[in-house]
Amino acid sequence: MRVLAVGAHPDDIELGCGATLLAHQARGDEVGLLVMTTGERGPQDARSRIGEQEDAAAILSASLIWGGFEDGNVPEGRDAITVVQRAIARSSPDLIYTHTPRDTHQDHRATAAAVLSAARRMRQVLLYESPTSIQFTPSIFVDVAALIESKMDLVRAHMSQVLKNGLVDLEALEAQARYHGFRARLRYAEAFESDRFLWDLAPMPQPRASERVALQEPGPSPFRPPVGEIDVPVS
Amino acid sequence: MRVLAVGAHPDDIELGCGATLLAHQARGDEVGLLVMTTGERGPQDARSRIGEQEDAAAILSASLIWGGFEDGNVPEGRDAITVVQRAIARSSPDLIYTHTPRDTHQDHRATAAAVLSAARRMRQVLLYESPTSIQFTPSIFVDVAALIESKMDLVRAHMSQVLKNGLVDLEALEAQARYHGFRARLRYAEAFESDRFLWDLAPMPQPRASERVALQEPGPSPFRPPVGEIDVPVS
Amino acid sequence: MRVLAVGAHPDDIELGCGATLLAHQARGDEVGLLVMTTGERGPQDARSRIGEQEDAAAILSASLIWGGFEDGNVPEGRDAITVVQRAIARSSPDLIYTHTPRDTHQDHRATAAAVLSAARRMRQVLLYESPTSIQFTPSIFVDVAALIESKMDLVRAHMSQVLKNGLVDLEALEAQARYHGFRARLRYAEAFESDRFLWDLAPMPQPRASERVALQEPGPSPFRPPVGEIDVPVS
Amino acid sequence: MRVLAVGAHPDDIELGCGATLLAHQARGDEVGLLVMTTGERGPQDARSRIGEQEDAAAILSASLIWGGFEDGNVPEGRDAITVVQRAIARSSPDLIYTHTPRDTHQDHRATAAAVLSAARRMRQVLLYESPTSIQFTPSIFVDVAALIESKMDLVRAHMSQVLKNGLVDLEALEAQARYHGFRARLRYAEAFESDRFLWDLAPMPQPRASERVALQEPGPSPFRPPVGEIDVPVS
Amino acid sequence: MRVLAVGAHPDDIELGCGATLLAHQARGDEVGLLVMTTGERGPQDARSRIGEQEDAAAILSASLIWGGFEDGNVPEGRDAITVVQRAIARSSPDLIYTHTPRDTHQDHRATAAAVLSAARRMRQVLLYESPTSIQFTPSIFVDVAALIESKMDLVRAHMSQVLKNGLVDLEALEAQARYHGFRARLRYAEAFESDRFLWDLAPMPQPRASERVALQEPGPSPFRPPVGEIDVPVS
Amino acid sequence: MRVLAVGAHPDDIELGCGATLLAHQARGDEVGLLVMTTGERGPQDARSRIGEQEDAAAILSASLIWGGFEDGNVPEGRDAITVVQRAIARSSPDLIYTHTPRDTHQDHRATAAAVLSAARRMRQVLLYESPTSIQFTPSIFVDVAALIESKMDLVRAHMSQVLKNGLVDLEALEAQARYHGFRARLRYAEAFESDRFLWDLAPMPQPRASERVALQEPGPSPFRPPVGEIDVPVS
Repeated sequence: MRVLAVGAHPDDIELGCGATLLAHQARGDEVGLLVMTTGERGPQDARSRIGEQEDAAAILSASLIWGGFEDGNVPEGRDAITVVQRAIARSSPDLIYTHTPRDTHQDHRATAAAVLSAARRMRQVLLYESPTSIQFTPSIFVDVAALIESKMDLVRAHMSQVLKNGLVDLEALEAQARYHGFRARLRYAEAFESDRFLWDLAPMPQPRASERVALQEPGPSPFRPPVGEIDVPVS
Repeated sequence: MRVLAVGAHPDDIELGCGATLLAHQARGDEVGLLVMTTGERGPQDARSRIGEQEDAAAILSASLIWGGFEDGNVPEGRDAITVVQRAIARSSPDLIYTHTPRDTHQDHRATAAAVLSAARRMRQVLLYESPTSIQFTPSIFVDVAALIESKMDLVRAHMSQVLKNGLVDLEALEAQARYHGFRARLRYAEAFESDRFLWDLAPMPQPRASERVALQEPGPSPFRPPVGEIDVPVS
Repeated sequence: MRVLAVGAHPDDIELGCGATLLAHQARGDEVGLLVMTTGERGPQDARSRIGEQEDAAAILSASLIWGGFEDGNVPEGRDAITVVQRAIARSSPDLIYTHTPRDTHQDHRATAAAVLSAARRMRQVLLYESPTSIQFTPSIFVDVAALIESKMDLVRAHMSQVLKNGLVDLEALEAQARYHGFRARLRYAEAFESDRFLWDLAPMPQPRASERVALQEPGPSPFRPPVGEIDVPVS
Repeated sequence: MRVLAVGAHPDDIELGCGATLLAHQARGDEVGLLVMTTGERGPQDARSRIGEQEDAAAILSASLIWGGFEDGNVPEGRDAITVVQRAIARSSPDLIYTHTPRDTHQDHRATAAAVLSAARRMRQVLLYESPTSIQFTPSIFVDVAALIESKMDLVRAHMSQVLKNGLVDLEALEAQARYHGFRARLRYAEAFESDRFLWDLAPMPQPRASERVALQEPGPSPFRPPVGEIDVPVS
Repeated sequence: MRVLAVGAHPDDIELGCGATLLAHQARGDEVGLLVMTTGERGPQDARSRIGEQEDAAAILSASLIWGGFEDGNVPEGRDAITVVQRAIARSSPDLIYTHTPRDTHQDHRATAAAVLSAARRMRQVLLYESPTSIQFTPSIFVDVAALIESKMDLVRAHMSQVLKNGLVDLEALEAQARYHGFRARLRYAEAFESDRFLWDLAPMPQPRASERVALQEPGPSPFRPPVGEIDVPVS
Repeated sequence: MRVLAVGAHPDDIELGCGATLLAHQARGDEVGLLVMTTGERGPQDARSRIGEQEDAAAILSASLIWGGFEDGNVPEGRDAITVVQRAIARSSPDLIYTHTPRDTHQDHRATAAAVLSAARRMRQVLLYESPTSIQFTPSIFVDVAALIESKMDLVRAHMSQVLKNGLVDLEALEAQARYHGFRARLRYAEAFESDRFLWDLAPMPQPRASERVALQEPGPSPFRPPVGEIDVPVS
């Protein structure tokens, strides 16, 4: 299986679905990350948030694509959609994770809107919670009891945020997993709203084929697609 | 995997999730059916609806339990909950299917309420659509393109309804699967609202053990638990 | 009665409410179309989508206005609102049809937002479904059993999309009308969410007067209002 | 056209949709009322609420059926559904008005549930607001500017409530019509949530035939259908 | 200020709003508890749950009324409403706390429905979360950082449940307060859905008068009002 | 207590929460106003809407900040967010009032989105209704019976709108307060949706300290922050 997780800033993905991505990694699934901005306006220290995100991707054995947008200013509309479409075209994911669109952070909202547009021909889009989400009402849960400590380590890769951003709080993160777990009758859970989820009930185990096209290699340098070069049909 | 499907009347389960149950059967999962009433007030012919439901259960290789309630009068409350709890205790299902609670048919609403109460310690409850459901907004889909014809055959087991009940319409049933499929980017789909769904991302394939306790054998004669004999804790 | 239907791309209106517009035509109502883009990024063949939309308008005896925006890039905000306001000012519609705003396609969302803003002093706005809509929960239905075949012919005017765009699927379109019809206890229905609908219970039949002001003549050439020339108060 | 309005207590119908019923009357439509209880536990004076409801029915030229249930104790379930089914069978309404089901009054909720069940094969159910409704979000409006004074007179037929029940407040009633009217860009409106509404766009005016079966004559004496005599299929 | 908290079973109130009631106690507000059942079907030990609830009431300096209903069988309808109305009549609360009605436990749902009905003339009803609530979306928060330890002690009064009922989990309870607190930008919070909340912006501090009528003294013995003796108007 | 009210145009704040601000004033709370545009495209007369807004601010003893955006064109995104963040930084409000985001007016939507983003670390955001709001479902109410006449006077400060804008209608405004009041069991109420509301149950009366930092003095001349000078962290 191939999954693509999209977040607005370094650490958004890990906070929202880090343990689930660790579970994908453990299964041998291919994991790709698309981070729309480098979070350059957050309280980072000298070691750049780019490096922190690269470290997190390495822990996840995930490829990493940068969206190249400005922190605080992710556009709603075609430019952002095109970036996501390109990431989809490269990695052919079976499922996409992104922010729930009900969020007070403008970059989270814009990212969610772009992903929902870009993924409109896909069959599976799951939406994760952020500290700024509102009225999050999940219906799909992943058991992360065995992974909660590893998730904490993963988030710690984003050292600058853990130390300085009041909305990145490891204790609250554990409480969140415990709360959603309790509601799902699990010890710890990551929780998702489902835009569309295809439950695979095929009788045969799905071969995880070696014929899969190689996922995009990690690309630490931000890129922005030239306007006018968009080749993926949108309607 | 063990699943239990609960419906108010003969044919409700097959209309709502028949193809999905056929997929479970094909995987070797154990399927149990709990039908709350015999539908005795519907437009049945001489051949009883009990027999039709038994035929459908046979096609599904499913055990069948009758709830023993009166058609049109499924109670909201403890009696119905107890019947569902007993069925759960016997079959230890991993997942329950039942009516969405937003439905204009009183028996569908009462059945849904009873199942949600009885299953409140379980991890997985999926809700299917009926012809009388309202504002059905599914988020989990099962690909049934290979099973839509078999589903039609399954529903035809309920011959009396297909011939005489205007709300059982095979053509509309196919349109429903086509509509939900199109929305989920599939050819045909059964669609579910998710109260709670545990997505199993464990790395190892789940053994479908032979140590499973045998499911309740088909029980054509309706039973009603004696009041006062309820032994399953409810709070 | 005068109605205005607004869509983002050629074919959106016909897919969403084509049979209803045919019913308006049969009643002698005036029908206007406003199409925000020419859909130039879709999989069209040589014969332009402009011509296809003109053909569809001719079948509907409808006037046609082009919004002049770029496919995939309909703006949210004043420019789009102004275009809709101008179309309203010209045709004085009693009712507007447009996309439901809950849609994963950015152009559909932007068009819906623009129409809802521009029509905020009007009494009737009905919202139709697209293949990319989400959580569509209609409450007003139009019986289109007698018109479903004509609707198919109308959509076939958009030949390039029917042949090449996977989301334009005549079979799925019929299933959609059958599904909504079944839910509304009709054979085939077009379904609408209602932002505001005025049910006319006046005792006298409404004269469909010949004194109506002429609707804007069909305008095949795209126009875009000059910025700064906006004369319709917006607050 | 034939309409049936169902309310839990004397005055509920007039408060919720009295002006709309006056509009039906003015059009020559047949109006039937079904009142589930006689409201005997309210603060009535010597002149019975039965008489007040009869007076209101006379003003509306409406037939009147009593449901025969106990005030404060309208059952959720088959008995109430059967009463509504009988009223439907007698009057063959094209449309039913009843309480919105989101209401803190148990009798309003039970009545709404019963009507939604009994009307599940009908094409049109509109839901009106009561003083105890919650989160009422109407989408269909009727212009009652010409009828607001007549509505006040109609409600004044329920003299005992106007004088003594704090939740029957003519000034608040006018404010309600003014508020909903303003939101619908009308002067005064009655507002409805729509469960299902069939918008008739047929080209020919609908003949209001003389072959209509006569509506049930007003029946002031409460009746309750004998249990076991229910002959209307429910599933 | 006078508040009344209503729960279905011993411990429901303390789990849902225990810290908030401690805050009321600290302000000198009068606190009343109404517990609909004695929870006799839960996994209690020899020391009765009645005694545990009395202990909790003593910690809260709260009066205690028992509803007298059977565990697992709280009725939806007039009997339960009457019990709540009597409790309201005795204690004249300014605000009522109760279960959110969206809950899979039948007793929680029935209690919430009864309270919403009984309180329909009151100005303030806040709804708390239970382990079986679904889609809880709070909008009013109380800062309980200084009270979270005391809340744990309060819940420990319900020793039998803490030891034996899997859905009473002190660690999960703390995680819940931490989660809601984090979302409300507090350290620990209790969270409420608001049916109606009156924010008092009066310029003068509200006198907490000594002329208050005495609250009903704690009544450990269950009572059930005789049918027919109901004297509180319901419509 | 310090509150900040944000509106898109002159008069939006007074229409939405004018009486509540008068109540704050009467308590001695500090009130700040942020108006995003000068409403220059509305039907104003010679006396500018700037002056009218200044008059309204004076009546409220409120400081006034202008957002400096163009009427009809308030941006969704960083520029608007930055303006709100600056206003927050200057006045350190405990609570913010703004438009509900469900509104058909683009400026209202954009203002609401900007405020929700800018206030994402705050504990209290209440949302008011406008004539163009849709599906407004309030849960927090302020009793304004003693202030409704003063609110009318406050709105009359916006003379140009009262005389010429059909959506500013004092009679409808009173009906709105009467309607919401009736629903909240009050005579007149202003009603709010609650994004987050912290109910202060601290035992001691809150000192309204003289050490408060002075609110920004009224700034009648519109300003627009230079792009690039944004210094408030956003993520």
